[in-house]
Amino acid sequence: MSDSYAELMVKIREIGQLEAVESLLDWDLETQMPPNALRCRADQLSLLARLVHDRRTGDEMDRLLSQINGSAEDSVQETNVREMRRTFDRSVKIPSELVGKISHVSAMAKGAWAEAREDSRFEHFAPHLSELIELKRQVADLVGFEDERYDALLDEFEPGMKTALVAEVFEGLRGPLSDFVRRLRDAPNKPDASILRGHFPQAAQEKFARRLTSAIGFDFQSGRLDVSTHPFCSGVVPTDVRMTTRYQEDFFSASTFGTLHEAGHGMYEQGLLEEHAFTPMGSAVSLGIHESQSRLWENFVGRSRPFWDHFYGECQEAFPDALGGVGLDPFHAAINAVHPSLIRVEADEVTYNLHIILRFEMERQLIDGALAVKDVPDAWNAKMQDLLGVSPECDREGCLQDIHWSMGTFGYFPTYALGNLYAAQIFETANRDIPDLADRIGRGDFATLLEWLRENIHRHGQRYRSDDLIQKITGKSMSTQPFMNYLHAKFSPIYGL
Amino acid sequence: MSDSYAELMVKIREIGQLEAVESLLDWDLETQMPPNALRCRADQLSLLARLVHDRRTGDEMDRLLSQINGSAEDSVQETNVREMRRTFDRSVKIPSELVGKISHVSAMAKGAWAEAREDSRFEHFAPHLSELIELKRQVADLVGFEDERYDALLDEFEPGMKTALVAEVFEGLRGPLSDFVRRLRDAPNKPDASILRGHFPQAAQEKFARRLTSAIGFDFQSGRLDVSTHPFCSGVVPTDVRMTTRYQEDFFSASTFGTLHEAGHGMYEQGLLEEHAFTPMGSAVSLGIHESQSRLWENFVGRSRPFWDHFYGECQEAFPDALGGVGLDPFHAAINAVHPSLIRVEADEVTYNLHIILRFEMERQLIDGALAVKDVPDAWNAKMQDLLGVSPECDREGCLQDIHWSMGTFGYFPTYALGNLYAAQIFETANRDIPDLADRIGRGDFATLLEWLRENIHRHGQRYRSDDLIQKITGKSMSTQPFMNYLHAKFSPIYGL
Repeated sequence: MSDSYAELMVKIREIGQLEAVESLLDWDLETQMPPNALRCRADQLSLLARLVHDRRTGDEMDRLLSQINGSAEDSVQETNVREMRRTFDRSVKIPSELVGKISHVSAMAKGAWAEAREDSRFEHFAPHLSELIELKRQVADLVGFEDERYDALLDEFEPGMKTALVAEVFEGLRGPLSDFVRRLRDAPNKPDASILRGHFPQAAQEKFARRLTSAIGFDFQSGRLDVSTHPFCSGVVPTDVRMTTRYQEDFFSASTFGTLHEAGHGMYEQGLLEEHAFTPMGSAVSLGIHESQSRLWENFVGRSRPFWDHFYGECQEAFPDALGGVGLDPFHAAINAVHPSLIRVEADEVTYNLHIILRFEMERQLIDGALAVKDVPDAWNAKMQDLLGVSPECDREGCLQDIHWSMGTFGYFPTYALGNLYAAQIFETANRDIPDLADRIGRGDFATLLEWLRENIHRHGQRYRSDDLIQKITGKSMSTQPFMNYLHAKFSPIYGL
Repeated sequence: MSDSYAELMVKIREIGQLEAVESLLDWDLETQMPPNALRCRADQLSLLARLVHDRRTGDEMDRLLSQINGSAEDSVQETNVREMRRTFDRSVKIPSELVGKISHVSAMAKGAWAEAREDSRFEHFAPHLSELIELKRQVADLVGFEDERYDALLDEFEPGMKTALVAEVFEGLRGPLSDFVRRLRDAPNKPDASILRGHFPQAAQEKFARRLTSAIGFDFQSGRLDVSTHPFCSGVVPTDVRMTTRYQEDFFSASTFGTLHEAGHGMYEQGLLEEHAFTPMGSAVSLGIHESQSRLWENFVGRSRPFWDHFYGECQEAFPDALGGVGLDPFHAAINAVHPSLIRVEADEVTYNLHIILRFEMERQLIDGALAVKDVPDAWNAKMQDLLGVSPECDREGCLQDIHWSMGTFGYFPTYALGNLYAAQIFETANRDIPDLADRIGRGDFATLLEWLRENIHRHGQRYRSDDLIQKITGKSMSTQPFMNYLHAKFSPIYGL
């Protein structure tokens, strides 16, 4: 290993440690921080963001990257140098003050969003949103783009992805999804989702969530499960992965599928190789690939029939009052009920992507100026009607439901839908490579699938970009076909089509 | 305000923010971090310690302090410059690598200590202790001292204090305390402490602890109460003060008086002026003064008769099984039972300082080399016999009971005893200034005392050194007399002397 490379690694790991600290501060803010501490925490996050940024973009980093240029000794070094160069080239264009400012503004905006959401008053959040959009436009202009500003923002979350391609893919999904929703609406079988609305005591939900996530492979010696308003998984260190959930005592699905989802994220983080911690080789490929892992465990595994063949007995024991008298068939149908609804995080697998298409279209317009902030609620409601045939009664159930815009993370939402598409392609291939996968899941063997994911995805860190990785695993480019095939194969029998 | 001073303030606040982050990471480690994350957290703490150290000792800091030298515009500026100069002069002598190393070694040593304590095997902790002593000796030699190495370490926690003076004060306490313990042992009344050993459900303890600490003035909008093995209070930000406790369901006192103690620390932190946050004017004077606040609320207020005149009814309602049939007199006697025992944190007010004298004498010898690490358990046990007439059965009840040595904080223990002495002097003066203080406490009016402490101590930050502050408040230097007077006045009637 060259001296320059060794020096680079020390610097990179230091940056990674500072990012891990940022991540913990943010987790703390979301889960437990005393309310009066917000401004001070915003200052701390801003300071750390500047420290990270300065290190990423310093002359020292430039010098080291240039010295190593072309002399990487193996594919690990190649990956690390390529990705640090990419980060450098992007970050160096953004002044440290702007980075600190965005961090501070968004920490404060999160608080404002939470209050505005509580009161269902978009106008209280609007000034923060305007400020963040303006700041993110500045970022896009500084970073540069070929076709449209939104490209520069999307690239932060899904490196290499283009807005035009996302738009094309979404355009291709829109019609078939809407058609399928209509077919299910008119189908002979109607799952009775009300059976998931009994009384599910919080303590029992928590215990059951821990049981399921441990069983599929989340390691609680290297992670935690806590409560937050908006569930998330924070895992910059493979040995410290923190997922959150929220419990609704009158609803089974929120915590159960929410924790399976976050555990999917968490197991990806825990599966990154510790020897590469804090370097690109020890980091997730993209948010889309990350989401493929969470959706795969939440839906492709967690809402599958074999999964509940294995766990439904325990589930009934955990919630005897609500589910003791409910059979497995109606239960399985209920957890897969398709119903156009208002809230993205509660959406079923079929309508979910429509929620994302709405957000993608809106933020693309917000960034390029075609949509004014003051018109967000009306635009949102109109699009909901158009895409899903439902209308929110208030902003809390509409444009204030998600935390993302308060974090300034425009370009993040599309990765959710990409994750669904990737998950379908990956799961299709996993089933080809492990022909008895469904049986294994039915026997409670999740280790085989996890090992396959570790081998094919987790251990590679950022060795491959998302499109290369999908190509490498599945032999094909990203496509909507496996996802649509999966939906038809799964939902047709449930709905008697 | 001069430009240099303004620039200095920006730098100082940044350092303070980084220290606040360190403090949060440490709190997290103690309360909730997943076990596998320890090594990574040690790296983070080490990195932050180096970042803080580099900023404190950089050329930039030197330049600014020199430019301002003598041109401070008011006493606030004077205090900040004086204390930053003091910190600079001390810190600049210690290389950044050594600071990072101590931070790392002590984070790992904490883990080793916790395990060794669990197994009651001192020899498993001994190598870590040896390493920390060696590192702290290096620090002392680099910082420099006039009389003995221990001075350089003590100065970190109690600026300006000398080992010789502490030794003299402790020597003066030793005899009178031992005499008083003997007189109480042979006194006619014997409190029945067993009434505190009934069943006290954890949930009720927590609720009651929150009730008491809110009532005396701890603000939960700017703070938290959590659980940790070793209770502490972490408060670098006045708006985010985190105290911890531990619950023993078979013992009333641990959480009740423990939280009153930590709340005393916490209210000091919350009473520091937010406008001076992260600067010496917004920081506590010393650990001794800090401890005076915790001991004042825990003992001088919290174990007083008027306090329980006010709260005992509620207390019986909180713990009806254990205390429903116990009168106030025997309860008050029980919480003030004096009994030489093995564990410092459970010691009564009379014997407590003897535990400190033991630790002070031992660590002074460890630092100057008169005591070898391998001989620690024997030396500990012999001193316990000598000072308190009791002998631990195992290291867990002896030399492994406290976390401090695993943190490398030699010089910290004496501040506990100084805190007791300061508290007695301060409380004596508060009673002179507020003649009906006891009646007010009996009526549940704690605001008058808290306001007096805010006015006389908290709002001054580091404007005065501890000796100047005590002189200013009480009109006298530190003395053991008020403490001994307090003990006699309080315990003689309880014991029928």
